[in-house]
Amino acid sequence: MQDPERPLVLCCPLPRTLELIFTPARLAELRARYQLVETTDEALPGLPDAVLAQARYIIGQPPLDAGTLVRLSSLRCIFNVESNLINNMPYDQVFARGIHVVTTGAVFAEPVAEIGLGFALSLLRNIHGADADFRAGLEAWGGAGNAGARLLTGADVGIIGFGDLGRAVARVLQGFRPRLRIHDPWLPEARIIEAGAEPASLDQLMAGSDVVFVTAAVTSENRGFLGADAFASMRAGAAFILLSRADVVDFPALMAAVASGHIRAASDVFSDEPLAADHPVRRLPGFLLSAHRAGALDVAFQRMGEMVWQDLALLDKGLPPNLCKRAERETVARMRSRPVSVN
Amino acid sequence: MQDPERPLVLCCPLPRTLELIFTPARLAELRARYQLVETTDEALPGLPDAVLAQARYIIGQPPLDAGTLVRLSSLRCIFNVESNLINNMPYDQVFARGIHVVTTGAVFAEPVAEIGLGFALSLLRNIHGADADFRAGLEAWGGAGNAGARLLTGADVGIIGFGDLGRAVARVLQGFRPRLRIHDPWLPEARIIEAGAEPASLDQLMAGSDVVFVTAAVTSENRGFLGADAFASMRAGAAFILLSRADVVDFPALMAAVASGHIRAASDVFSDEPLAADHPVRRLPGFLLSAHRAGALDVAFQRMGEMVWQDLALLDKGLPPNLCKRAERETVARMRSRPVSVN
Amino acid sequence: MQDPERPLVLCCPLPRTLELIFTPARLAELRARYQLVETTDEALPGLPDAVLAQARYIIGQPPLDAGTLVRLSSLRCIFNVESNLINNMPYDQVFARGIHVVTTGAVFAEPVAEIGLGFALSLLRNIHGADADFRAGLEAWGGAGNAGARLLTGADVGIIGFGDLGRAVARVLQGFRPRLRIHDPWLPEARIIEAGAEPASLDQLMAGSDVVFVTAAVTSENRGFLGADAFASMRAGAAFILLSRADVVDFPALMAAVASGHIRAASDVFSDEPLAADHPVRRLPGFLLSAHRAGALDVAFQRMGEMVWQDLALLDKGLPPNLCKRAERETVARMRSRPVSVN
Amino acid sequence: MQDPERPLVLCCPLPRTLELIFTPARLAELRARYQLVETTDEALPGLPDAVLAQARYIIGQPPLDAGTLVRLSSLRCIFNVESNLINNMPYDQVFARGIHVVTTGAVFAEPVAEIGLGFALSLLRNIHGADADFRAGLEAWGGAGNAGARLLTGADVGIIGFGDLGRAVARVLQGFRPRLRIHDPWLPEARIIEAGAEPASLDQLMAGSDVVFVTAAVTSENRGFLGADAFASMRAGAAFILLSRADVVDFPALMAAVASGHIRAASDVFSDEPLAADHPVRRLPGFLLSAHRAGALDVAFQRMGEMVWQDLALLDKGLPPNLCKRAERETVARMRSRPVSVN
Repeated sequence: MQDPERPLVLCCPLPRTLELIFTPARLAELRARYQLVETTDEALPGLPDAVLAQARYIIGQPPLDAGTLVRLSSLRCIFNVESNLINNMPYDQVFARGIHVVTTGAVFAEPVAEIGLGFALSLLRNIHGADADFRAGLEAWGGAGNAGARLLTGADVGIIGFGDLGRAVARVLQGFRPRLRIHDPWLPEARIIEAGAEPASLDQLMAGSDVVFVTAAVTSENRGFLGADAFASMRAGAAFILLSRADVVDFPALMAAVASGHIRAASDVFSDEPLAADHPVRRLPGFLLSAHRAGALDVAFQRMGEMVWQDLALLDKGLPPNLCKRAERETVARMRSRPVSVN
Repeated sequence: MQDPERPLVLCCPLPRTLELIFTPARLAELRARYQLVETTDEALPGLPDAVLAQARYIIGQPPLDAGTLVRLSSLRCIFNVESNLINNMPYDQVFARGIHVVTTGAVFAEPVAEIGLGFALSLLRNIHGADADFRAGLEAWGGAGNAGARLLTGADVGIIGFGDLGRAVARVLQGFRPRLRIHDPWLPEARIIEAGAEPASLDQLMAGSDVVFVTAAVTSENRGFLGADAFASMRAGAAFILLSRADVVDFPALMAAVASGHIRAASDVFSDEPLAADHPVRRLPGFLLSAHRAGALDVAFQRMGEMVWQDLALLDKGLPPNLCKRAERETVARMRSRPVSVN
Repeated sequence: MQDPERPLVLCCPLPRTLELIFTPARLAELRARYQLVETTDEALPGLPDAVLAQARYIIGQPPLDAGTLVRLSSLRCIFNVESNLINNMPYDQVFARGIHVVTTGAVFAEPVAEIGLGFALSLLRNIHGADADFRAGLEAWGGAGNAGARLLTGADVGIIGFGDLGRAVARVLQGFRPRLRIHDPWLPEARIIEAGAEPASLDQLMAGSDVVFVTAAVTSENRGFLGADAFASMRAGAAFILLSRADVVDFPALMAAVASGHIRAASDVFSDEPLAADHPVRRLPGFLLSAHRAGALDVAFQRMGEMVWQDLALLDKGLPPNLCKRAERETVARMRSRPVSVN
Repeated sequence: MQDPERPLVLCCPLPRTLELIFTPARLAELRARYQLVETTDEALPGLPDAVLAQARYIIGQPPLDAGTLVRLSSLRCIFNVESNLINNMPYDQVFARGIHVVTTGAVFAEPVAEIGLGFALSLLRNIHGADADFRAGLEAWGGAGNAGARLLTGADVGIIGFGDLGRAVARVLQGFRPRLRIHDPWLPEARIIEAGAEPASLDQLMAGSDVVFVTAAVTSENRGFLGADAFASMRAGAAFILLSRADVVDFPALMAAVASGHIRAASDVFSDEPLAADHPVRRLPGFLLSAHRAGALDVAFQRMGEMVWQDLALLDKGLPPNLCKRAERETVARMRSRPVSVN
């Protein structure tokens, strides 16, 4: 079974599948270069010692207890392809051994940022509402149809959270030359300045923006950090666009702010998914709705496989992974974004 | 009446008004610096000779016959603030005298380009349809809601016409780093290349693009130049976005191409506006509708006044106008875009 | 002799030659498509009436009197390939007839801007001086060799004149993300703002810049407009880079400002060229010298031919020229930059 | 001595000093917020156990043996402000404990990249040589002075190594819109592509570039990897610019390639510094010389302090450092760039 030329990879990528994240051609290459052992989260600890001892990589995010980790004596890297880090292994032991734990969530940044800009333009120009009116024979022509319309070029834009997604949002905004304010308490100001933006406190950003994009992940510290006061502080008619996780927002307060006519909003994420059939947000004017569709594009899943493939090549050369994002000792335990169970 | 310090301006801006295109502060400055004679297209020829002889500028697009032009002996510039050039004066005489005829249509480029990108993102990600489904309780969650979804980043994009509007479209696309092909038979290839795009024939562009933006004005030569063959040559699932004038397209052929499922489309312009209540496009899936709303923003009209104001200052210094676009001897007679009668 | 298919072009491009500005392949195409009559400034008026009457284009900048112009009854465009406009024809008559007079000077913008940035970096980091010291065995190592060194990234940069050359300078500066101030009295502020820069008065620009680029042409109004006061107002250690014409500067005052150690300077142009062997600027420390070499690259001359070629194609289609720059009724008589007599 | 509010920092930054890397205002803040213990590489192990046990940070790059590391029981981060990593501590032990070892070398990227572009422009246009000729009364005017001159805009440019310095070089080149090829065997191709460049083998890059910038650090694997064959494969007249360390090049072979007239070169680094007074490179035409001055700017040293300051703040909040670059388990032992002994 042993083949020193073909490193052993344990595969338990659920809810992903190898076929979802690798093209057929790439999967064939993967099988040729590596010895793939396809298993499940549950079955993995029961694999023979010899298999675990040989495993150099894991593609998946299985729970690992201390004993299993000891048996995984050659392990170098765990590729979490669900992409939300969870507290399901003794990270101290993992990091002490220099095992990398990495995620492929960066693949979602581009599709989410693109639809996020689409949400912003739809809100600012009522693209969705005007289409619905036109179909109903209720359209208003010319300037009469532009009540509340605003331009994005040169607008004051705020981005909350400046990880992969926040950066992708900044990128798709480039042609609009916004005045960009960014709030990210985990990032030094220099990183924001070198991106051509202005570091801002949350208060400054909320009060000073025409459009706000929320891209921050949920942590142990930021649940519901955007509430009624924050929404009240926003400019009249401003657009609030929620792209990361519903738990960073006080959702009823957000709905109230939209219902009052003070702001407009769009959201791709909700506290309970799927959302109840009678949830009042479904009938709320000024609130653009999307059913957690922003990231889940086929092309994103295939990029996931490419990231794994290219980082495997670096690891094989004795280099650290580069494309995937590494879990950090300091922050891994603070993550609270719930994993998805469907693709 | 004469005041050599305050040049005389004839004002007949209908369908615009001075109040629409100038902010109150700017209008006060305008009245202080210039002698405004507010008139109408019809009344202008009947003004006293002394008034016409003094008039240095016209803000408006009145019909002028040869005789009236002779009486307008000090005329230097006509600011067409409707913005479509029309064949309503003896241009030879105008140009021989070095009178500038300029338009302020560039102010619409930014709002039209912004909504155009919004149309593209809505089509590629079904933002409007998914919102309607969500409101109806019919939403599909996650990847299940992304049938036909495509990314714009790195896509093949074509722009037909590369005037102010085409350039504005290219600008808002910057962050998406498209492979950009441009077709404009009035422009040398060097201008397209220096903008970082590829010159393309109409056939290449239609067949090789994931998204096509039409920004070309109607001329005596291009009525209906995009027809059934052109739509059939497009990539399956590509998006066709019409931003300039409906007359450049064979509209029934466009509807048929969308109805067949071959392409998706969005349009802000229609052959008959307002459109008949029973027009079949209102019921056509895959066709995003907008009632000639793309340009008519308050902010665009106020920029119109700013352009006029800044170019007046240049003309006062004996310099040519710079911000407004000049009618050209060679092309003025070819223009066929119909003026609007409402703002 | 007549051939309606092959428009007649009078060619008297001295100091250029057809071989300098067209590649052999392009020149062959030109001869195939057009009927070239090679002549000289002196011989042109003596050509037979039939030839003059047929001539549709001139490549060159011959003096033309009113009578000759009348005989040039089919003339549509004069391509000045020396590139400085001179007052050598009755422009009123030319413009009344709608004849375009265009120049190809834009080809020099790129090479001049590139060497201009090279001058700036050499001054800011003493690249040329450190090389000379190293060759003389007098180099200072590491930080000891960096007295007066400054970074360009994020610096305050001023550009005087924002035509083709000023724009090319702004372009090569892009990666340095300067705070860019621009002074150009012939341009509305909106043009400067849309280029991402700040309009500034001459005083603001001179006093507020770490590096100043002068790209303004000489006109009847601006001879010697940069004098002792302007240089005294500059920041200590700032760099002054002269790229257009020496006549816009009080050259002795510039030398005095450099000699005093207050500023550093570079110049590609001089009041008398070639410069006297004993001119004191040759011995002035802090003054980087270049013998009018900035634009005269082979590749620039070949682009000149390409501009002419592409604009001829537009004119043949009944369109106005686009790549070459048109002389303007209002400003043509104000130009004072002396033409060159050698390439 | 203990003060839980003021974390203890051991300072032994030689060859830097605290005064070099911190402004007076920042140093005062540093002293207020932290308990600074100023020591030396030699004295550090002899400090009392109580001091070592409290030390949370080290600013400096002292050799540390296993025993001293054990006594540094609270250590979280070592800030190497010399900036070359050296093999002077048991890194396994360091990494197992999760102690960060970081460097501040990124501060040199900007000044080195700027002078690197200056070298390129000087070589392509002979700015330094033409200035020397002008001073000697030997200048050639106009096109006659441009033998061998080339434009950078649109040129084929190669960058070897794509770390901080390589990226800074790409940034300052932006305005020149080069076709950029990058070779970096430690980086996945996706990183190069997302930067808008093309991944290339070393052979492709050397043979296909008009200008080559070398920014790669010396490792255990790449000493002298650019030799006679590589230089022979370059395009005639291409420019080779060495910015990182002389040891990556076969220097005599580089000199021979320049002496033969095949290529031009510039270098800021040399195998023995200071270079012997009679070293033949001092008399080599076509070789631009700089005495390791590229990075050593006052402003760079002050940014070093800022990076330390901002990353200290993150570490104080329990976050990982972000601005400084972390040593990696996998690569730290491969680094061979010699540290500097003077600033």
